[in-house]
Amino acid sequence: MFNIRTDLAVEAHELYRETDSREEVPGVVVDTEKLKKISITRVHIKDKKGEEALGKKKGVYITLEIPTLIHKEQETFEDTIAVLSDELKRIMNLKEKDTVLVVGLGNWQITADSLGPKVTESLLITRHMIELMPEEIEKGVRPVCALSPGVLGLTGIETSEIIKGVVQRVKPSVIIAIDSLAARKLSRISTTIQLTDTGITPGAGIGNPRQGLSIDELGVPVIALGVPTVVDAATMANDTIDLIIDHLMQQTEQDSKFYDVLKNIDRDKKYSLIQQVQGLEQGALVVTPKEVDEIIEDISEIIANAINIAIHDSITLDDLNKYH
Amino acid sequence: MFNIRTDLAVEAHELYRETDSREEVPGVVVDTEKLKKISITRVHIKDKKGEEALGKKKGVYITLEIPTLIHKEQETFEDTIAVLSDELKRIMNLKEKDTVLVVGLGNWQITADSLGPKVTESLLITRHMIELMPEEIEKGVRPVCALSPGVLGLTGIETSEIIKGVVQRVKPSVIIAIDSLAARKLSRISTTIQLTDTGITPGAGIGNPRQGLSIDELGVPVIALGVPTVVDAATMANDTIDLIIDHLMQQTEQDSKFYDVLKNIDRDKKYSLIQQVQGLEQGALVVTPKEVDEIIEDISEIIANAINIAIHDSITLDDLNKYH
Amino acid sequence: MFNIRTDLAVEAHELYRETDSREEVPGVVVDTEKLKKISITRVHIKDKKGEEALGKKKGVYITLEIPTLIHKEQETFEDTIAVLSDELKRIMNLKEKDTVLVVGLGNWQITADSLGPKVTESLLITRHMIELMPEEIEKGVRPVCALSPGVLGLTGIETSEIIKGVVQRVKPSVIIAIDSLAARKLSRISTTIQLTDTGITPGAGIGNPRQGLSIDELGVPVIALGVPTVVDAATMANDTIDLIIDHLMQQTEQDSKFYDVLKNIDRDKKYSLIQQVQGLEQGALVVTPKEVDEIIEDISEIIANAINIAIHDSITLDDLNKYH
Amino acid sequence: MFNIRTDLAVEAHELYRETDSREEVPGVVVDTEKLKKISITRVHIKDKKGEEALGKKKGVYITLEIPTLIHKEQETFEDTIAVLSDELKRIMNLKEKDTVLVVGLGNWQITADSLGPKVTESLLITRHMIELMPEEIEKGVRPVCALSPGVLGLTGIETSEIIKGVVQRVKPSVIIAIDSLAARKLSRISTTIQLTDTGITPGAGIGNPRQGLSIDELGVPVIALGVPTVVDAATMANDTIDLIIDHLMQQTEQDSKFYDVLKNIDRDKKYSLIQQVQGLEQGALVVTPKEVDEIIEDISEIIANAINIAIHDSITLDDLNKYH
Repeated sequence: MFNIRTDLAVEAHELYRETDSREEVPGVVVDTEKLKKISITRVHIKDKKGEEALGKKKGVYITLEIPTLIHKEQETFEDTIAVLSDELKRIMNLKEKDTVLVVGLGNWQITADSLGPKVTESLLITRHMIELMPEEIEKGVRPVCALSPGVLGLTGIETSEIIKGVVQRVKPSVIIAIDSLAARKLSRISTTIQLTDTGITPGAGIGNPRQGLSIDELGVPVIALGVPTVVDAATMANDTIDLIIDHLMQQTEQDSKFYDVLKNIDRDKKYSLIQQVQGLEQGALVVTPKEVDEIIEDISEIIANAINIAIHDSITLDDLNKYH
Repeated sequence: MFNIRTDLAVEAHELYRETDSREEVPGVVVDTEKLKKISITRVHIKDKKGEEALGKKKGVYITLEIPTLIHKEQETFEDTIAVLSDELKRIMNLKEKDTVLVVGLGNWQITADSLGPKVTESLLITRHMIELMPEEIEKGVRPVCALSPGVLGLTGIETSEIIKGVVQRVKPSVIIAIDSLAARKLSRISTTIQLTDTGITPGAGIGNPRQGLSIDELGVPVIALGVPTVVDAATMANDTIDLIIDHLMQQTEQDSKFYDVLKNIDRDKKYSLIQQVQGLEQGALVVTPKEVDEIIEDISEIIANAINIAIHDSITLDDLNKYH
Repeated sequence: MFNIRTDLAVEAHELYRETDSREEVPGVVVDTEKLKKISITRVHIKDKKGEEALGKKKGVYITLEIPTLIHKEQETFEDTIAVLSDELKRIMNLKEKDTVLVVGLGNWQITADSLGPKVTESLLITRHMIELMPEEIEKGVRPVCALSPGVLGLTGIETSEIIKGVVQRVKPSVIIAIDSLAARKLSRISTTIQLTDTGITPGAGIGNPRQGLSIDELGVPVIALGVPTVVDAATMANDTIDLIIDHLMQQTEQDSKFYDVLKNIDRDKKYSLIQQVQGLEQGALVVTPKEVDEIIEDISEIIANAINIAIHDSITLDDLNKYH
Repeated sequence: MFNIRTDLAVEAHELYRETDSREEVPGVVVDTEKLKKISITRVHIKDKKGEEALGKKKGVYITLEIPTLIHKEQETFEDTIAVLSDELKRIMNLKEKDTVLVVGLGNWQITADSLGPKVTESLLITRHMIELMPEEIEKGVRPVCALSPGVLGLTGIETSEIIKGVVQRVKPSVIIAIDSLAARKLSRISTTIQLTDTGITPGAGIGNPRQGLSIDELGVPVIALGVPTVVDAATMANDTIDLIIDHLMQQTEQDSKFYDVLKNIDRDKKYSLIQQVQGLEQGALVVTPKEVDEIIEDISEIIANAINIAIHDSITLDDLNKYH
């Protein structure tokens, strides 16, 4: 069927319930929580059934939704950092001397794709300092290292290959992989953060299949932290068409001839319509809001601060500005 | 009615003929030409009728369409520079000692909006040199000056106010105003260049009304050179809906009850559908391709070179690289 | 004599007392103050004598020296903002409805020269909002507008010409002109801030003579706020030579033949030596620390915040992050 | 003795002959050549004696000096690309199917240090394309991959560690490591290019000791391609002092008391003088010309083009613009 391009488990879940109109999804447990302006959704995919239903790997997918982030209020920024660092702490569950490797995925030359590299720049990097002068390092600081390997098109080397080499030497206890995601709705861009313990799996997102980054490939738990920064325009158009068709079907007797016309609009027809609207091939049409530069700036600052706090017991919200 | 957000006369023209299904548009004459991979369309709006039909000011709108620009071939770049500089020469029609003021509109902090400032940076600026050392300047170089005044949100001053002050002092013979435009189709982004002798008029484009830049306000002919860098997502969704409705109507008997259902889908319903798809208010949804950084880089280089060649008789295609 | 390239009154003063070894400088009164890690020096040039002695225009020159700024501690940042905004308030002495125009001088393409433009970007711009929706603006917010006119080389228009036009329309009560300065010592870069009520005068700084920005040209008081971001390498070399010569003279009998040798090393000889060391002409040799990108980032944030607080009674240190 | 901070063999050689006033340096053979405006110097360090004399590893150091590069003429750019690609070809001596790994050293956030990363961005990367669609790749294109690993301060991982991992997987036939260098003279910045077959050795340059990148550590020949982008200000001041002392000694009788004064000025005294001039500790004082942004832009374009031509037989000077 029409490949819906979304990296977000919540959207996949939403979508599943839209198509099948059922409340329950087999093999999937969902719990939600609301903290101030932040809604937290935890999608637990329990088994094969759940994997098939949502087309995502078994594991937990934690989503923070903060629609008001776009208002750029310091208070919301700090609440988000607090909630995100708590979720990270729980999911990483670090022991005292654990080393963390943060991988900034994406291409720092393309703003919409530069979230990963931007986050790694703003991190407090400690591994080399701890090795050079352990005594000078205050207690409650763990060894952290980071790498932004770049993208296949610019390196000619699979990202997973580069990371494997580093993992062999650094021997981290856990990896945090930061990535830009694709969402179905523009409204999600920079207002949603997804955390998962499943790492990053091939063919995810906007269809740049690549070898995965997960415990299977790297032998180390990989926590993927992603934020939607782009939307696939073809998907957006497809959603529009589905919506209008649903709307029309509701206004038509089930047995009428027209009801069949609507039901039988097939995906090839949809495609050709989509292409008429956009005048381009599908893949090419990945769009991002005009203000992407500022959006990436803000959200990468938030994530870097949350990671600093989650890893180092001695760093708190009050130290926020100290390290940028 | 639903305000179609396009800055392009060709799209307005296209659109007009779609809605009214007539070949001829009253008060409008269109001629087209094809040079290698570049299609040139000249829309002449002759009178009030034409102005009303296309919602654009009386004057000529020259559009270059170069779909293959995205392939980034040096040859296409050079052909575009050649054609653009010819059109500019004709429309400017400079006398020997004429001074040209180039205004780079837009916000250089927002990539999608930075075309204007980027072009002014790459221009050959001569006015001050000619004043300081007239003898050293080779023949065939005209006085050129440039300004990127910034946007109202960052200056607190109407752009037209800033330009008026400069015009009073510099007394240019002609102004070239470079701006980023909004188009209806993503395929147009960075592949279409519009030239017009009507300047820039309020409320154009994606609905940031501002005082105009035209001979009426400035007392000097203003040539507007614009390139689409963004698309209004609401417009895109609206087009999608119209297309599917048209498609369905073709499959329905004109007298059937359903035909009326389709005909009577009103714009409020459309809006609510659009907002469901995108989950955001309209204005906010201005999108741009993910690769916007690179796109702006290339096209601003092309435009700057075309302007250099169009203004200075002593500069030719062969000098292209000399001045970047 | 050898033209010492410094924009800083404190350095000119220092220098004067080095050459003439006198404590007092005629026509100049200096008072100093120390607040936490910030030393404040106020050089009052009272009359012609003082102008000649220091080669600077009559007026007050306030210098903040914060050597520890380079340690990038949030606390020092906030102390600097507090002190700078206080000095600005006193020197501007605004009435309730006064409008302020901030001019960001320099070239945003050259990092070392981009301080002015960067500051204007980070300012709270209110003039247009107050005009559009006066009621919505909270009390204690004054109309502020800003412009970064660019440099002569990129515009072909004298900066003062551009500003004059804007001043005629905006009619500000006071102008704050932000500029990058040249210092004699690298240690001053980004650790010294100079405020003066004399505006900016031609031929100042690293020898790019330009028309001035002062009450004489613009008819409005101009406060110049400058930070050293570059050092003239020839000046640096010259200082080195003077130091070694002084050192040697101290070790030599005043009547000895060699004492004369030292005393008679003339500037032409010095020049040729300087050029041997650097292998370049003088002007070209303006240097800046390798970390200039980060330096400009930090200091422009500090200045923008200080200006916001100095202008708007309703904004305090606690709102700092709210507006960037 | 006073550690002269230079990465350039030509400067070390020059320096050696200045101090010892001898023409010949033991264990070192030098040949020079002049092509148009480009002087080529090849310093061959033959043995231990040569290593000690110049403080550089055994091998060949090829230096291109192009003072006129700063004039930014397309012709000089192209001549430089031609000469540099020829020297690279000779030194790499590639077989038909050899894979090349280009390593862009340095920190892309600090302009003066971003040469390496900038070059890798502009390269034609082919390794992944050749693996995915060997048939589609024209003959005369070799597999090229690239990595910009970042600096220890931002990654917490030794660069050599990161590269080792990649080398194990990619198994390149040769590595080209691009780095920013430190020179003694500002005039060398961006006008000198050094090529060596010795790789990069610890403690080189401006004193950031790091593990080396050479055949000893990586088991693959490493060609280091470096361009001076910074000068150590303390070194510059030291040179100034030496020059003035030499000048004075020439004017003094060898047996005079003062001759001894001059001869006995020791380095501690020099240091304290240097610090008086600059008011800062040594290391901190790495300076770069104000126009560093533009300089890095130009030179990285030149190097990337030269590498493309040197590696791929099917790419020539005429294709230059095709790949940026």
